[in-house]
Amino acid sequence: MKILLTNDDGVHALGILKLADYLKNKYHVIVVAPERERSAVSHAITLHKPLRLKKVKEENNLKIYAVNGTPSDCVKLGIEVVLGQKPDLVISGINEGLNLGTDILYSGTVSAAIEAAIYGIPAIAVSLSEKAEVEDKRIYKFLENLITKVLQKGIPANTLLNVNIPDLKENIKGVKSTILGKRTYIETFQKNFDPRGKEYYWMAGKISEAENDERTDIVSVKNGYISITPIHFDLTSYDMIDDINSWNLKIE
Amino acid sequence: MKILLTNDDGVHALGILKLADYLKNKYHVIVVAPERERSAVSHAITLHKPLRLKKVKEENNLKIYAVNGTPSDCVKLGIEVVLGQKPDLVISGINEGLNLGTDILYSGTVSAAIEAAIYGIPAIAVSLSEKAEVEDKRIYKFLENLITKVLQKGIPANTLLNVNIPDLKENIKGVKSTILGKRTYIETFQKNFDPRGKEYYWMAGKISEAENDERTDIVSVKNGYISITPIHFDLTSYDMIDDINSWNLKIE
Repeated sequence: MKILLTNDDGVHALGILKLADYLKNKYHVIVVAPERERSAVSHAITLHKPLRLKKVKEENNLKIYAVNGTPSDCVKLGIEVVLGQKPDLVISGINEGLNLGTDILYSGTVSAAIEAAIYGIPAIAVSLSEKAEVEDKRIYKFLENLITKVLQKGIPANTLLNVNIPDLKENIKGVKSTILGKRTYIETFQKNFDPRGKEYYWMAGKISEAENDERTDIVSVKNGYISITPIHFDLTSYDMIDDINSWNLKIE
Repeated sequence: MKILLTNDDGVHALGILKLADYLKNKYHVIVVAPERERSAVSHAITLHKPLRLKKVKEENNLKIYAVNGTPSDCVKLGIEVVLGQKPDLVISGINEGLNLGTDILYSGTVSAAIEAAIYGIPAIAVSLSEKAEVEDKRIYKFLENLITKVLQKGIPANTLLNVNIPDLKENIKGVKSTILGKRTYIETFQKNFDPRGKEYYWMAGKISEAENDERTDIVSVKNGYISITPIHFDLTSYDMIDDINSWNLKIE
């Protein structure tokens, strides 16, 4: 069994290296990850410049490559160039920090897993609370069980899993399948002045997530559950098709 | 009525400037767009460096600003800093080149419109075939009618429109509400060697879209229709929630 790992924290991040080290005991693990942090790059791909692929480690059951691109570039290169075939599973992570609710639209971690699902490969995005201990063995045992289930049962076409793990030092309740919550931001920009007196804006923002209920990933993680949200990428809003046709728009 | 325009081709692209010039006859138009081309950046946002906002033009009913960020950054800055309030409509485009099917996941144009919809603002992404004439007056007349309908009828919450306009010099059939098709790529990377003999990979790829039917945007545009696809951004795959719960995963 071959598992392709990527992330958006970069190839040297602890989350991906710990996971690779654990999984190599059971699987062939190929890491293809950005050479530097590429958080919040969403599903960006690199069309306008060449990509470089650099092998940074090779040992029994584990190869690690760095790419000067985005997480989605890494998935494409990993499948088409490094492996030359589809792996059995793609895992994106373990990300340092949660990827919850509407925020996944900005996430490089989740987008890499979506890219794998576009190829028709089972895919899991895994994110860990910044407060949690990446060394905690329970994380890897849980992921091992999840991977076993996914490889056994499969995932429906055009679907992937988005997993968020809270701080396990706190009171942990269990594992729960969830829906995506909604996050909005208020006071998004801090205005300030640079040393030359020119103004700039830095994206910040307080999270506003009041409208979420217990079915959501946001509330479930807050309440001490590991959340598993099944994700699809069919953005068609089927309900509105007939409305638009009734507008009788013409091109003259 | 205030309309915020953005794009991913950059603030100097003909598509956005022509549209702004046309719309300023009827609306207050505020352009906030990337200072340079940012295609295929998807929903990336800029968290790790400051953003600069530069006014490049001001005339009756039209203000134009350039931003050193992504299309989604531009929407956020446009709403929160430039306007200080929500506009009545956000239009992303007119993009040079179509944004069809699963490719919209990579699109800065469509992501900017999604960002507006997250704010609860009616939003339209507009893309034009590279073969088409951006000067063609029928494009602007059609968009004017579409905007009028959208402002009259509204768009459901968490929904936006993705509009693709084929080459109007060819046989034009009409306007059609469509679903997203599926595009995959084969032979994605060209391998080559730089002047120092080091290998690189450049993303290319032949489009494979055989499996699409007449309901899709891909086939509709090919057949000479302007396609309007209603888009949502709820990525939860509700069908799979119970399956995952039946896996009985635990955290020890």
